Parts: sequence; structure tokens; C-alpha cells
Amino acid sequence: MSAPRLAQDQAILGQPGSRARIDTPALVLDLDAFEANLQTVMARVRAQGLALRPHAKTHKCATIARRLAAAGAVGHCVAKLSEAEALSACGITGLLVSSATPDAAKLERLAALAGRSPGLMAAVETPDQVDHLAAALDRAGHQLDLLIDVDVGTHRFGLRTPQEALAVAGRIAAHGCLRLRGVQGYAGHIQAIPGYAERRAASHACLALLGQVRDALIEAGHPCPIVSGGGTGSHDFDHEAGVLTELQLGSFIFNDVIYDSIELAPDGAKPLRCALWVQTKVVSSQHPGFATTDAGFKSFATDGPAPTIQAGAPAGARYDRFGDEFGKVVLADPTQQLPLGTLLECVVPHCDPTVNLFDQYHCVRGDRLVEIWPIEARGCTS
Amino acid sequence: MSAPRLAQDQAILGQPGSRARIDTPALVLDLDAFEANLQTVMARVRAQGLALRPHAKTHKCATIARRLAAAGAVGHCVAKLSEAEALSACGITGLLVSSATPDAAKLERLAALAGRSPGLMAAVETPDQVDHLAAALDRAGHQLDLLIDVDVGTHRFGLRTPQEALAVAGRIAAHGCLRLRGVQGYAGHIQAIPGYAERRAASHACLALLGQVRDALIEAGHPCPIVSGGGTGSHDFDHEAGVLTELQLGSFIFNDVIYDSIELAPDGAKPLRCALWVQTKVVSSQHPGFATTDAGFKSFATDGPAPTIQAGAPAGARYDRFGDEFGKVVLADPTQQLPLGTLLECVVPHCDPTVNLFDQYHCVRGDRLVEIWPIEARGCTS
Repeated sequence: MSAPRLAQDQAILGQPGSRARIDTPALVLDLDAFEANLQTVMARVRAQGLALRPHAKTHKCATIARRLAAAGAVGHCVAKLSEAEALSACGITGLLVSSATPDAAKLERLAALAGRSPGLMAAVETPDQVDHLAAALDRAGHQLDLLIDVDVGTHRFGLRTPQEALAVAGRIAAHGCLRLRGVQGYAGHIQAIPGYAERRAASHACLALLGQVRDALIEAGHPCPIVSGGGTGSHDFDHEAGVLTELQLGSFIFNDVIYDSIELAPDGAKPLRCALWVQTKVVSSQHPGFATTDAGFKSFATDGPAPTIQAGAPAGARYDRFGDEFGKVVLADPTQQLPLGTLLECVVPHCDPTVNLFDQYHCVRGDRLVEIWPIEARGCTS
Repeated sequence: MSAPRLAQDQAILGQPGSRARIDTPALVLDLDAFEANLQTVMARVRAQGLALRPHAKTHKCATIARRLAAAGAVGHCVAKLSEAEALSACGITGLLVSSATPDAAKLERLAALAGRSPGLMAAVETPDQVDHLAAALDRAGHQLDLLIDVDVGTHRFGLRTPQEALAVAGRIAAHGCLRLRGVQGYAGHIQAIPGYAERRAASHACLALLGQVRDALIEAGHPCPIVSGGGTGSHDFDHEAGVLTELQLGSFIFNDVIYDSIELAPDGAKPLRCALWVQTKVVSSQHPGFATTDAGFKSFATDGPAPTIQAGAPAGARYDRFGDEFGKVVLADPTQQLPLGTLLECVVPHCDPTVNLFDQYHCVRGDRLVEIWPIEARGCTS
């Protein structure tokens, strides 16, 4: 973000009507909706008897991590080491690096981070990684807690049998600098199944393997106090399988277009509010039926659905792509023309990669811009 | 980018074999290919008798802007005001803000920038914008050169008739702080037409309107020394129409998967080299036939085709998406398995939004990482 833009936004903080004066495009977080989502899910997870370790790959923001911890989260997952480094530098603790790496230099950095990041944990999946990580930790003089990653069906990471997990656990036990804390398994491939009942059945099938691995570890005398997994799509019923001890939800705080379009509750209710949108403005309106906005590919992730317009355009209007820097609002009435400067609120289509495009959250309450939160781990993909 | 990651990469600069040791994922720029592309296009544009004003929305990098200026570029286009602010803060001059805005606060910032950015120009498209901009410039005590934006068929921005352009030109002439320098028209919608002959005909049809507007302005006594437009896809033949005085090419320095897949030369030759890729690594390989890499939606733009694998995997391997942080290399031989740590070079699918995901170019020559260039205007979308 350019310095003049940030200065312009900072100058209007707290002023009545300042929400409409945020420089566009901007990533806007509705604090009331964010807090309601957090309260809703936290209460539900507590009632399930589980812990919450939200996934920071979604928000990448130290301020949000602190809010989650204050609400009762036991820690934070990150997908990449560099995210852990960035959030740790902001004082965030209890970080779980949820994907393994075979990279020697990264294992050195992970070992170094273990010395300055209280409560750090990491996922592992091969005996070699365990040995290399232990060697790096011994050189650094630090210790680290580990979870064994189990492939519950996504086939992206993880072991597929209790036997493989026992081999890794045995290797962990051989190193004094390592402590096995349990297992994790993320069923990413089932999170966006539209129907509640179908998603529930799919999730329980995935969790069965995780339970078998846990049982095998315990039977062999290995510790397994943590069984981590689950996602926003499955958080309502994952506890029923009796396997997980904690949930790794990410998107629940924002509720993007993807999650808003699936049945999150069995009764058709919408337990979560859309808390995150891109505020954009009509910058050219030379034609009836459509107009050009200032938010394009560089402001919205394009891997999923289109953003939905929640405010600013007449009913039936839809957002379409219009290049890297610009969007197109297509009106239901082809004779209508939107005035220049019209403000639009477009709910983020897929929150994680959309957040990664921005440097700040512009936080609003009602008609006011009340805070600007830096996204410290934006771009931390390594 | 996290500080430990940057320190790790800086520590290997210039070392033999350092290219293979860059922390992944990384945006890698092949300086030999970049310089060859620049030389090829610069020579061609010179032979056409045109000037080059490359589009910095593609690279967003002051170092690249300086290289382009040293090679003869007369200035640099930017899509957004905040890009101009960021590059101007790095000392880049001759900036053309190529899209108009109706935003009052942005017009104030544009007027302020005019006082500190030598050679600044901006595009305008409505008489009201002209008046508001003039008022802001008068308050700031600065002057600004303008181009009138003409819609040559993309329908995203711009006027559609000589009459409308004359009205805007008349308004510009009424303000002492403004100077009309000409017109621009970008035919974005035809740049990726696969066939050379079809693209050539489409481009010439677009340029005809731009020529009519230029003629009308000159006939009415308005100055029109600059006619700016063109893109990488049309740069080989745009000069034939006798309309443009300068080209606004962006992608030519990188040549992404999109441009590499179309007929850029009439004889099937490939005048440009692919100079930009994402270096990524196999981080999990638990299955025959495919493996997981460390570059996903947050490392590749997903609006266009998939990246192509130019090195690191057996022939026939293709890149597939595997979530926000991870990619999937699918092997042609379903029984083959890639070793953990295998390095892959994936040519960027669509360069502009891919560059916008990274904070640095990792610049290589041969087997060495030789420079790391900051992407100062990354995220400047406002």
C-alpha cells in the first residue's frame, strides 16, 4: 500500500461516515460480524468438549490471532514456516506448522524458531524428516513438539497407515530433543461438499483412519494427547466421531462466498455472517447495463466463484472480471447505468487467497472505519 | 517475506549453484532472457519509428523500470495512482496513470503527485474529471499533462466518439494548469487472440477509431503529439496503422504462458523467451503418479491457464492446483514417483497478477542467484 493512501485512510479513522470514504479497493472487515462468528463457533466448540486451534493461513494477522487467543483459542495453525516466523515476530505463541517439509535449510530455521517461539509445534510425515529435524535441533540446542500428519483422503500430505505412523513415532522417541504430542489429519477435500448430510458422512469416514492411527500409537505406548483436524465445513459434526481433541478451522471468522453457499447447519440456518468484503468503486460508467469498478484479479482470488455484491448495486447485479485491476458490475436491467463513484461491497469469493492480496484489514463498525490492522504474514508462502 | 527467509537468500547471493538453493516458492527472473526480450522488442519498436512506454503494472518494480529507461523507454505506464506514488517514491519519472478516476480524494493525491513526479501524465475521460482535477491542481499550485482515453473496443474505460473527445479537449484547454498531450486507447480484448493474422486485423480495426479521434482533435486546433496504445500481443503490427506514436507493452519482458501460447510472429517463430517462473519444491511424495509442491493459489494467478513446467520433472508432467499453499505435479507415468525435494521451474501463467503475489524477484544468471529486486508497488491496487 502506498504511503499517501495509508495516510489518507488513517486520517479518517473513527469519523462518522468514514466507512464510505475508505480509499478503494480495500479489504473491509466488519468487526461486529467477525466477533459474532467467533462467539458462535467458540461456544459450539466448547459445548463439543473440543479445543480450537484456528488456522492463521486464513487471516495472516497478529491482531486477529490475539483476538482468537483472547476468546479461548489454544494456539494457531500456520501452513508455512515463514508464516510462523512472521507471526512469532509479532509475539504470537502456540503456533503449529501444519505441513511438513524435507527442506534442509527450512528445518534449520524451524529449529532456530523453536528457541524463540513458546509452544511451537510442527507436523512431520517421514522418518528422514524426523532425523534431520532432530539433528538441526541438537545443533541449535532446542526442543520441539511434533504431530504426525495422517492423510485422511486429501492425498496432499500425510501417512496412510498406522504402521507408517508407528515407524515415525519410533523415530521421534529416539531423539531427546523431540516430543510426540499426537496426530493431525485435515480433510480438505470434503469441506465444501454442499449438502450437510453428505459432508457429515464423508467427514466421519475420513476421521476413522485418524482414530485408528491414534489407537495404534497409544497401544504401542506412544503419547497421543492431541488429535487435530477439522475445518469450517465440518466443524458442526466432527466431534461426533470421538476422534478429534481440537479443531483447525480457518474461514469461520470471515465466512466467504464458498462457505456461505453450503449447508453449514442441518436446518438450513446460516450460523455465520459474511464479515469480509472488498469495497470497490465505479470508476467508469460509459455504457448502459454495466460499469467498471476498481477491483480486478489483483483484489479478488479467482480460484473459486465470483464475489457476490452485498451492497451498492441494484438487486440482480453481479460482479464479473474485467482484467487485472478492474471489475465489471453487470446490471439486471440492461438499460440502467450506475453513477460514477458508486460504492460496492463485494463479499470475498475465497477468503484465504484474497486476504493474501492485501496489506491491511480496514475494520468497520456501522458507518465508521475504526481500525486498520496490518496483515503481517501476507506473502509468507515459503 | 519473513526476515529469516530473506536473510537466507541474501546469504547465498553470487555463489555457484545458488539458483538451486533459493528458498521456495520464489519468483525467479532469468536476467539473460529478460535482457534478450528487452533488446528484441526495443530494436523492433525503434525500427517501427515508435517510442516505448512500458506498462509497470506488469512488473511493479523500480529496478526494472530503471532498466527499461536505460534501454530507451520514454516513460512508464501505471494502472493505478498508488502504483505511481510507490514508483515515484523510488525516483521513477515519466509516469502515465493510464486509467481515469472520479474519486475526489485520489484527484487531490494526483495533483499533489504532480508537484513531485517529473513528467507525470494522467488519462481522463469525462469533462467533470477534468474540472475536478484542475481545481485540485490549482489548489496545489501544480500543472499536469493529460491524455484523453478512447475506448477502442474493450469497453472498460474511454470515450467512444470524436465528439466526446472534443468536449473533453475543450474543457482541458480552459484550464491553465492542464495541458493536453494526446490520446490513448488500449485494445486489451484482442491481445491474446491466438492467430497472428486475425489479431492483426482486429487490432487495426481498433486503431481506426483512435486515428479518427486524433484527426478530429488536430483539426479543431488541439495538440496531439502522443497517441499511446498497443500491447505485447499486437506490438509486431500496430505501427502499420500509422496511428500510434508509442507502445504501452507490459508482458513482453517476461513472456508468460498466455503470450507464449499465441502466434507472436507471422512465421511461427518465438521472438520472446520465458523469463519468469516460480521455483517450487516437492514437499510430499507419498503416492505414485503425483507429488505435492510448495506453490499453490497464493503463488500463481489462477485467472488464466495453469503454469507450465519448464524444468525439474520428466517430460509430460503437468502442474495442477492443490489448494492455497500447495501444487500437484501430475506425472505422465502413473507408476513413477518424484523424490522429495525435487526442484521445479513453473513458467508463470499470467504474469501481472502472479508478480503481484510476491515481494521480490530472485534474479538468476545461469546457476547463480545474482540479485534480489524488491517489488515496491506490489499490492498497490488503489
